[in-house]
Amino acid sequence: MIKAEIITIGDEILYGQITDTNTQWISAELDKIGIKTVRKSSVGDTKEAILSILAEAQSRADIVLITGGLGPTKDDITKKTMCTYFGSSLEINQEALAEVTAFFAKRGRELTGLNLGQAEIPTNATYIRNAYGTAPAMWFEHENTVFVSMPGVPFEMKGIMKDTILPKLQAHFKTPFIYHKVIRTIGIGESFLAEMIEPWEDALPKHIGLAYLPSMGNVKLRLTGVGENEAQVAADVEAQFQLVLPTIQEFVYGFGDDEIEQVVGRLLKEKGLTVAVAESCTGGYLAHQFTKVAGSSTYFLGGVLAYANEVKVHPLGVKESTLAQFGAVSEETIIEMAQGVRTLCKASIGLATSGIAGPDGGSEEKPVGTIWIAIATETEVITKKLQLGGSREQNIHLTAVNLLNLVRKKLNVV
Amino acid sequence: MIKAEIITIGDEILYGQITDTNTQWISAELDKIGIKTVRKSSVGDTKEAILSILAEAQSRADIVLITGGLGPTKDDITKKTMCTYFGSSLEINQEALAEVTAFFAKRGRELTGLNLGQAEIPTNATYIRNAYGTAPAMWFEHENTVFVSMPGVPFEMKGIMKDTILPKLQAHFKTPFIYHKVIRTIGIGESFLAEMIEPWEDALPKHIGLAYLPSMGNVKLRLTGVGENEAQVAADVEAQFQLVLPTIQEFVYGFGDDEIEQVVGRLLKEKGLTVAVAESCTGGYLAHQFTKVAGSSTYFLGGVLAYANEVKVHPLGVKESTLAQFGAVSEETIIEMAQGVRTLCKASIGLATSGIAGPDGGSEEKPVGTIWIAIATETEVITKKLQLGGSREQNIHLTAVNLLNLVRKKLNVV
Repeated sequence: MIKAEIITIGDEILYGQITDTNTQWISAELDKIGIKTVRKSSVGDTKEAILSILAEAQSRADIVLITGGLGPTKDDITKKTMCTYFGSSLEINQEALAEVTAFFAKRGRELTGLNLGQAEIPTNATYIRNAYGTAPAMWFEHENTVFVSMPGVPFEMKGIMKDTILPKLQAHFKTPFIYHKVIRTIGIGESFLAEMIEPWEDALPKHIGLAYLPSMGNVKLRLTGVGENEAQVAADVEAQFQLVLPTIQEFVYGFGDDEIEQVVGRLLKEKGLTVAVAESCTGGYLAHQFTKVAGSSTYFLGGVLAYANEVKVHPLGVKESTLAQFGAVSEETIIEMAQGVRTLCKASIGLATSGIAGPDGGSEEKPVGTIWIAIATETEVITKKLQLGGSREQNIHLTAVNLLNLVRKKLNVV
Repeated sequence: MIKAEIITIGDEILYGQITDTNTQWISAELDKIGIKTVRKSSVGDTKEAILSILAEAQSRADIVLITGGLGPTKDDITKKTMCTYFGSSLEINQEALAEVTAFFAKRGRELTGLNLGQAEIPTNATYIRNAYGTAPAMWFEHENTVFVSMPGVPFEMKGIMKDTILPKLQAHFKTPFIYHKVIRTIGIGESFLAEMIEPWEDALPKHIGLAYLPSMGNVKLRLTGVGENEAQVAADVEAQFQLVLPTIQEFVYGFGDDEIEQVVGRLLKEKGLTVAVAESCTGGYLAHQFTKVAGSSTYFLGGVLAYANEVKVHPLGVKESTLAQFGAVSEETIIEMAQGVRTLCKASIGLATSGIAGPDGGSEEKPVGTIWIAIATETEVITKKLQLGGSREQNIHLTAVNLLNLVRKKLNVV
């Protein structure tokens, strides 16, 4: 087993002033290529703390990945401290200098003394290009341990990892071939899913592992095969996937990085359909799920934010009598909302939400979490009542996810 | 200086399968009471890793806060391993047993063997109540170091910290009195703000510190006073705040935990005004900022998601000739959108957004990031053109934040 440690350097993370998204991403990427993270540590911008964690990590791991402390200001001491640790010194690297100079030139700025320092790397380091910023990354090999130092800015670090570090680690450690298949499910809880596929899971061959990755409203299943023969491993994993698929089919909405809103968008596009939304309790969140996808204007026309009852009546077209008799949170109202927005926006499909997201506004008959959703097409209306039990934020999110999943199911049989 | 270390136990965090939000929150809370985090570590669910990190942390820190590994399943070995570390053993705690029994009874479930184990704590531990779940927290004092073990579920851990651990740490370590004042600014970058207040910052008395906490679209300034006399420290910090306020007044939108959408909501409520939105490029995100605030139905009426041009014309009321002559992303169109939605929803104030969020759809004349925002009242329309340079997600967010801030400024002078 190849063991890695991840070290984050910086007072802002240590004192909780900024969110560290780097370590999770790095460990997940390492896991994908069969490298196990054995420890993650955060230390502050002090020489003692950095020297101590470097020595400790080296004693435990084959790979030490370090982020942060590479900026041009005096707080950023990672590079200098690594020189101390390795007994090397800083010198201008010509490739780095050319990169930094070009980076500044492109932005019409001159390279000043402080930024010139960005082109310096320790004499025992291999220069690693950073195509996204001015601080280069560095690769060290020291007493059988590989050290990699990268800038802490997430998109720079991720770019460098993908461009260079991950392939270089695979080559250096001759990691076995790994094949992943991520199956995304929705509408079923982790424990129910686990129970449902238990016999299959128990019978998985030794070289294929299964992980459950749950998040709000959905559960990802990740099949991971390990082996020396690329084609064989891939075939084995795909065969296991085919075995389990019939059991879980109705809950599977996508694979890999698919999000439900992307899947629904793709289906709408493929079928040449358009959609409009009438949102009450989701208050814009449902539309945002559609419109955060680039290119969504092909199928998303718009809709009505029908928060107040007056807006439900006009322009949406819900009858005043319906609202008076059944209330805003009712099947009768949600049907008229979905049909109304479909007609108003001349869309193929009209969607609607109305409910009590909380924390206030509930009654004995309609407690917080009572939510109606609907889909109207030219020929029919599908409605569903949800009874959610989360916070306001969770109820809004789960309403949108449930409705998107209902649309997906509908489109799959159209 | 009182030094703390935070340890997260669990394979899911170590392998990057779930996001660790606990350590940032804990270190920020410790910082507020004057306790410095000197290291954060994550280790897996193995006895060796846990024993090793406990010994290391004890050698460096006065306080060791541990989360995770307290569940009822066999993977959760924190409690057993702490017994090994301290040379103690597990026994049923009567208070814990009563709590767990009550927790299950309330949910109509019987206490089974596996969950009975939740009531066991090490013999050298002080029982700490968990009012939010079944796994109690534990407090240990061992060779001058305090160890606290808590469940990893974020809302349980946060509840226990606030209810018991933070006050208990303050009492135990007789921490000095700390007074914070958080000033929330918007519409100015960190470095410009820093430059603007540099003379004031340089003249701050020694017992008052300043931290810049930037996030997308805003910068928080945190003044922290430390001292023995509660009233004096508070007065000193407030006096410094009064000194700096005139310089930064126009950028200050709130204090403490205030979010811009809450501040705008409060202003609308106070003034008895209502708002409606016409969203093109923000596609529901602006409405969601309003409606994610509980109680927003008092002032947020709704609006139109005017993504397609047809929806801008009907029901919103933008003239076809305006769209044809100036395009959807223009001052002429944004004015008609804001006025249109105000009239349509009978709101005091109409807001509108139209622009190119990206990544596609830009032109030489109107590149990606060109965005118009507008506020319409009964008597006037205020417009603003933004030129943003972020990702689609960032451009959408910053458009909403900019418009909310424009509303805030307008309402402050109404």
